[in-house]
Amino acid sequence: MGRLTLPPPPRPVGAYEPVVVRRGVGFVSGQFPIENGSLRFRGRIGQALSLEDAREACRIAGLNALSQINAATDGFNTLEGLLRIDGYIASSDDFFDQPTVLDVASELFLEALGPRGAHARTAFAVPHLPLNAPLELCVSFATV
Amino acid sequence: MGRLTLPPPPRPVGAYEPVVVRRGVGFVSGQFPIENGSLRFRGRIGQALSLEDAREACRIAGLNALSQINAATDGFNTLEGLLRIDGYIASSDDFFDQPTVLDVASELFLEALGPRGAHARTAFAVPHLPLNAPLELCVSFATV
Amino acid sequence: MGRLTLPPPPRPVGAYEPVVVRRGVGFVSGQFPIENGSLRFRGRIGQALSLEDAREACRIAGLNALSQINAATDGFNTLEGLLRIDGYIASSDDFFDQPTVLDVASELFLEALGPRGAHARTAFAVPHLPLNAPLELCVSFATV
Repeated sequence: MGRLTLPPPPRPVGAYEPVVVRRGVGFVSGQFPIENGSLRFRGRIGQALSLEDAREACRIAGLNALSQINAATDGFNTLEGLLRIDGYIASSDDFFDQPTVLDVASELFLEALGPRGAHARTAFAVPHLPLNAPLELCVSFATV
Repeated sequence: MGRLTLPPPPRPVGAYEPVVVRRGVGFVSGQFPIENGSLRFRGRIGQALSLEDAREACRIAGLNALSQINAATDGFNTLEGLLRIDGYIASSDDFFDQPTVLDVASELFLEALGPRGAHARTAFAVPHLPLNAPLELCVSFATV
Repeated sequence: MGRLTLPPPPRPVGAYEPVVVRRGVGFVSGQFPIENGSLRFRGRIGQALSLEDAREACRIAGLNALSQINAATDGFNTLEGLLRIDGYIASSDDFFDQPTVLDVASELFLEALGPRGAHARTAFAVPHLPLNAPLELCVSFATV
């Protein structure tokens, strides 16, 4: 992990698990830009948030996802590697650059995990998200 | 399953399978609040539908998902457990409480399946859905 | 594959892989209607695009998905079969027939792959997508 310091894994906001692993496939519940227990940013990119805000929000959500995987894989010891990242971004009608936001998480995962951080990716604009969060990251992975 | 009575699994609305299982991983096609062959609710939560309507819609879609898994796993005999639930909810611009709606399905799965019902979860607001359905549940699972 | 000719697999638009396969499960990154390196269609179905445009866009994105899987599975030799297709369609407020659009991809996969092309499916309306694309296809599969 080098210089990265992981936050404590955020708690679910409903009747579900933060991570489930079965038969070698793991799914992390949707991660938001939660820092110290509360949302750091709210609203849409292109309206309430600038591109730089959005990239910082993506970094925080990405760290939370890493923290969840770390907790579920014995400190990454049982992690085979990431599978797919789905990025949902609350966007104004004229914001089309979701990939530039999500690259922050993609690069974070590669920095933290090396080749095990390589992943497929999808990106979406949504009108809004639970809690009025600006973005939600969904990550799946394989275990050894 | 205790007191739960499962409806017959709804038929697909296109050229796809209701459930596909390969190499121990199963995916259920998106489930809607269909009852007796037709949508029980239509429109957006926060507009056409109240929170209570939405929770009832979620219960119906959740029962349909369970019915699909039941049919695909020999009455849950070959079910290792759920993986992730993705909940897409047609929402008005000021409705942010998607988790309270989805908890109905999460609690249903735990009631029906015990520890095998534990799952990761994602939640999204969308402007609308196919057929003008108020919500769509996507469920993945592992088999033994 | 019979009469189908696959295009070269499009390159990712960010810091991710076109396909990742681990432990027998493969995820293709979101595929757009890109032809010869650029988007063939832009905008929403029901506004900028007709249903026929949308179906053609879906065919192109489906061919791109097949091309990615072909490249990742040694010409389909190591493909066990498809798992789930998620279709996200940029839609006007009154367009609810996403399944008719996605059937083009579903039928293409069945034509190309036979029983291995059978898949579960989800369908969503979104207000817009990265690059102002009209649709995005996300495909998962299992390998032998």
